Amino acid sequence: MAQFLLKTRLALELPKISAALERAENTLPQEVRPVCHHILASQGKRLRPFLAILFARLLGQKKDDIYDLSVSLEMLHAATLLHDDVLDNASQRRGKPSAHTIYPVTTTILSGDALLAAGNALVARFGNPDLSAAYSRATMATCAGEIAELSSQYSVDNTLDHYIAIITGKTAKLIGAACEMGAIYAHASNDERRASVRFGEAVGIAFQLVDDALDFAKEEETGKPAGGDLKEGKLTLPIRYYRDSLTENDRADFDAQFTQGKLSDALCQKSIESIRANGWDTKTRAYADTYLAQAIEALMTLPDREERGLLRDVTHFVRDRKKWGHHAL
Amino acid sequence: MAQFLLKTRLALELPKISAALERAENTLPQEVRPVCHHILASQGKRLRPFLAILFARLLGQKKDDIYDLSVSLEMLHAATLLHDDVLDNASQRRGKPSAHTIYPVTTTILSGDALLAAGNALVARFGNPDLSAAYSRATMATCAGEIAELSSQYSVDNTLDHYIAIITGKTAKLIGAACEMGAIYAHASNDERRASVRFGEAVGIAFQLVDDALDFAKEEETGKPAGGDLKEGKLTLPIRYYRDSLTENDRADFDAQFTQGKLSDALCQKSIESIRANGWDTKTRAYADTYLAQAIEALMTLPDREERGLLRDVTHFVRDRKKWGHHAL
Repeated sequence: MAQFLLKTRLALELPKISAALERAENTLPQEVRPVCHHILASQGKRLRPFLAILFARLLGQKKDDIYDLSVSLEMLHAATLLHDDVLDNASQRRGKPSAHTIYPVTTTILSGDALLAAGNALVARFGNPDLSAAYSRATMATCAGEIAELSSQYSVDNTLDHYIAIITGKTAKLIGAACEMGAIYAHASNDERRASVRFGEAVGIAFQLVDDALDFAKEEETGKPAGGDLKEGKLTLPIRYYRDSLTENDRADFDAQFTQGKLSDALCQKSIESIRANGWDTKTRAYADTYLAQAIEALMTLPDREERGLLRDVTHFVRDRKKWGHHAL
Repeated sequence: MAQFLLKTRLALELPKISAALERAENTLPQEVRPVCHHILASQGKRLRPFLAILFARLLGQKKDDIYDLSVSLEMLHAATLLHDDVLDNASQRRGKPSAHTIYPVTTTILSGDALLAAGNALVARFGNPDLSAAYSRATMATCAGEIAELSSQYSVDNTLDHYIAIITGKTAKLIGAACEMGAIYAHASNDERRASVRFGEAVGIAFQLVDDALDFAKEEETGKPAGGDLKEGKLTLPIRYYRDSLTENDRADFDAQFTQGKLSDALCQKSIESIRANGWDTKTRAYADTYLAQAIEALMTLPDREERGLLRDVTHFVRDRKKWGHHAL
């Protein structure tokens, strides 16, 4: 039932988000539009715009240019995806070829830059420096998170706190900014604004942790081979739990292969099976739940309007997500 | 004498620009600071911040946080250089190794993103949406200009107007934005603001045209081998004049090699000598002068203060520039 209400509301908002996105695309320089359209059209459920809209409404703002404001978040997200896919040399994005496999790499990078700039221009149009500041901070945090992730790749020497800091930067700060910008747009109080950020960042961390767990779900369920993070040398939470469970000898063997980025197929398969058998993925989801509980705690300090119930449903959606894909929503 | 006054003023402003740049660097995420410092420290005479400062003062604004605002332009400029050098796979930048030859390419791209974001955040801090809008427009125009340049590389099928449009985007729009942001900061009238943009864009176009002429100066004078643009397939103005002067047969031969990006050393040398002997580089400088005349015309509508004389001297500096290097100032 709850998910039905959430899906109904999303279905109502999506056409307005799409229309705003089309208006925004038309502000882009002609040269970058094909690449930008490619990435923007391949997106999922517009989580970030949707959250900004829900927070604006929850905090009492009824104006309709929230749709234009909200798509600035999708543009920033799309810009990071364009650059990410180049950096990771990823060939696919949500089942479609990555932009840089169709367009020149140079055009792809510059299109990401133009999307960032157009997103900033869009936010600047609202004439509220707090919005521009929140947007720029989110961009910086996302870059910093990605760089931190790259520098801890193929390493087993970082703490869980460090890992949480990385995913906070690369995923949660932007989701936090989506909620915060909705609150700023609604002229919310400082307390409400802080609660909105807390909700968004906690949801973002949980979202990424669930993603990390889903990397070990069956390929039939997710459409993606299991264990990608093992091969990519990312010490995500389920992999961390697994590694901690190994005997000293097995761990030395695992570390040797993991840090070289040369995990044998046999060890990869053994690791996946152990993670499933011991429930390290389930334990990761339980850890994500602690963040979702924090998100709900922050949410409950906000007004008791329809959107509060929907935002609670968003946390359930994040918790129960079955399909792999960091960017599915 | 005139150049002496300009140099004296620049020498007075540079330490304040450097201090502001250091403050700005400290707002960057820790992870990107080494790359950002590498590119920011290798810069030249800070033309863009200097122009913003001169316009703010010319239009009557005495406040000192102009220094902080002005360095946002250097950050945007540095971000484009980081991405450019990756795109061009350039190994050097102003006699020093390019960032991406020292740091990983991924970190270099993300550092460019962080610089863009930090520049935006810095501008947003001023709480004036007109500043943010001008800054974002300049970023978009620069990206679009670079993409347009890439797509007309190794082609002889574009008009002079198209070429001017390309260099307006990739070079002149940002210089125009520097002047405009100084004017906005000074709460200038709309007429003054428009004149500031006109000055900056005309100077920017002339700056790039002189650069294109300098590509054919002697290596002893510029520290760089002549004719780089020939090999890179850029139909700059001196090359265009030269090509137009060829007989039909010679032009067919030139086109065949130029559009393949495989200009023989012999033809390259012959082209360079012809451009020098026929003065196509000098004719390019004369064409640049027409833009500098437009710049001075716009400037003369602005108040008769000390800075107006200095800005006129800037046009002379651009005209008489001897050293190669798009980014020398």
